[in-house]
Amino acid sequence: MTIPAPSDLAFVPFVSVDNMMKLVHHIGIEQVLSDLTDYIEADFRRWELFDKTPRVASHSTEGVIELMPTSDGEVYGFKYVNGHPANMKKGLQTVTAFGLLADVASGYPVLLSEMTILTALRTAATSAMVARHLAPKGATTLAMIGNGAQSEFQALAMKTICGITDVQLYDIDAGATAKCMKNLEGMGMNLTACKTPEEAIQGAQIITTCTADKQYATILTDNMVGAGVHINAIGGDCPGKTELHRDILLRSDIFVEYPEQTRIEGEIQQLDADHPVTEMWQVINGTKVGRTSAAQITLFDGVGFATEDFSALRYVHDQLEDGNFYQDLDMVADPDDPRDLFGMVQRAKG
Amino acid sequence: MTIPAPSDLAFVPFVSVDNMMKLVHHIGIEQVLSDLTDYIEADFRRWELFDKTPRVASHSTEGVIELMPTSDGEVYGFKYVNGHPANMKKGLQTVTAFGLLADVASGYPVLLSEMTILTALRTAATSAMVARHLAPKGATTLAMIGNGAQSEFQALAMKTICGITDVQLYDIDAGATAKCMKNLEGMGMNLTACKTPEEAIQGAQIITTCTADKQYATILTDNMVGAGVHINAIGGDCPGKTELHRDILLRSDIFVEYPEQTRIEGEIQQLDADHPVTEMWQVINGTKVGRTSAAQITLFDGVGFATEDFSALRYVHDQLEDGNFYQDLDMVADPDDPRDLFGMVQRAKG
Repeated sequence: MTIPAPSDLAFVPFVSVDNMMKLVHHIGIEQVLSDLTDYIEADFRRWELFDKTPRVASHSTEGVIELMPTSDGEVYGFKYVNGHPANMKKGLQTVTAFGLLADVASGYPVLLSEMTILTALRTAATSAMVARHLAPKGATTLAMIGNGAQSEFQALAMKTICGITDVQLYDIDAGATAKCMKNLEGMGMNLTACKTPEEAIQGAQIITTCTADKQYATILTDNMVGAGVHINAIGGDCPGKTELHRDILLRSDIFVEYPEQTRIEGEIQQLDADHPVTEMWQVINGTKVGRTSAAQITLFDGVGFATEDFSALRYVHDQLEDGNFYQDLDMVADPDDPRDLFGMVQRAKG
Repeated sequence: MTIPAPSDLAFVPFVSVDNMMKLVHHIGIEQVLSDLTDYIEADFRRWELFDKTPRVASHSTEGVIELMPTSDGEVYGFKYVNGHPANMKKGLQTVTAFGLLADVASGYPVLLSEMTILTALRTAATSAMVARHLAPKGATTLAMIGNGAQSEFQALAMKTICGITDVQLYDIDAGATAKCMKNLEGMGMNLTACKTPEEAIQGAQIITTCTADKQYATILTDNMVGAGVHINAIGGDCPGKTELHRDILLRSDIFVEYPEQTRIEGEIQQLDADHPVTEMWQVINGTKVGRTSAAQITLFDGVGFATEDFSALRYVHDQLEDGNFYQDLDMVADPDDPRDLFGMVQRAKG
């Protein structure tokens, strides 16, 4: 990361929603997903370097607001993100987010970015990064259960990174499936709208669950899931919010991001606190095994971790060098004499 | 707090450094300090309502980056703030900050604001709010030890809120004192530059220590402090950073914001974990006593707490109704159909 010279430090580059969309199209959305997968994997490889903590959550009856900080010792990052399942009915996003990178040496911010779109991209890239390591060899069919705001990003990442050719979609709301089908049209996947989750799962090697109810739900029951699949369970991401029947967990090998956080928020909140799980970073750097047999059920209990946002922000920051796709925000008071903050304020009078 | 209509939710009002300075001068800096004191005190009165947690700190050899979240159940707020004592020598601010308010019911941000200036204002207002309750009656003289970026704000708040008429200044760097004297000229205080801390303390009823070394320092030794004073110790604010000799603490009655945080960061990190302290909110609402005798030493071990930033952001938000002093940031992706984030991104291609 290049830190700007002190005289520029009053200004923080800000990537708005509009600029994020322009940046994504400038690079190409599939390329962005592919790049993000590599950035996220690179940071998982240096996992031990990161300052890690479960996210700091403020829960209410309507949802949760979370701060997700991390640092690699040189760069600090955090994301603000909310999760409000009832927002959708009010015409609002369930998840909105923004994030920041700062220089650890000075504490000065170096990037502020929208992260509603970026979170959808990084979540899809994380799922694909994990599936690249755990899914059965030659997987071609994805069952996409839950066709909400994240579903197209998930499907496209599984196509781009894992070579998925067929996507079988199911949502409790057929309108969501129709929206997802329409959005993915012409993007190189054979799409099938399914009337039941059973139908969607039929023949799929990768099963993604991404639903948004804040309650213990059972999107998948035990008898729906056969041997030899990879389950990408990403909808359960806060206390009281799960998607899979406990029995599926008991016959799966479970892979997680950061156990301290996943045991609070993930599917495994249904299991004993000492139930064995494997940390993905160890699979990626080769110290733990991933899939060991074709018949095995691998389960990624993905809740989203701060390093993934850090990787995504790091990627966006790396794209800004040519001066496009951001605006400068006058966010840091930077008097010529750093002790003269009061004088700076007083001189602005008039 | 008025939450804007959904169609406006894609935009978050942002108060830049420039707009913060304009807003302060529009209202008048002494009025702002006085208003902030009242907002902060009002939130201390409803202390039990707040979701409280020690700030989330990421420490490095150079300093610390912290996130300070809180919520009153309706509004959520957090501040990003760094503390880098060596920044000053590099021409940078020791402390920079920004903050955000969000609607708890939807999780959508409703205000983003610079907080470098606002933190200096709210820290001074908090000190004055506490001194209003604890300082000896009729206090007229302030010793200001440490004449850096926060010193003028501190002195002015003590004048405006507590009626201080005389300020005796000392800094290890005479240049800092000269800067502070110049900035406070003509603001209604008799100013004296002192060559030693002893000289500055002579005759003062309120002693403020606000220095920035990240090490156990002893700005005040025991024999320097007589009976019947109020010490406003605000420079010790992270592990390993203190300003007062332990013996002063032992003969003072100590008042704090949030003990769980102050025991980690404040002067009282030098004392046993069960050393008695009084929480300021209980003094303010009358359930605990403050100053009980003229000869008593009261000590405010101020480290800064999230509710104070919340109060300050709430105040700024309340000033924005006439449409000035902010710009709209395109920070929240807000597709017409909330499930159609992907479609919104794809439609932006062109």
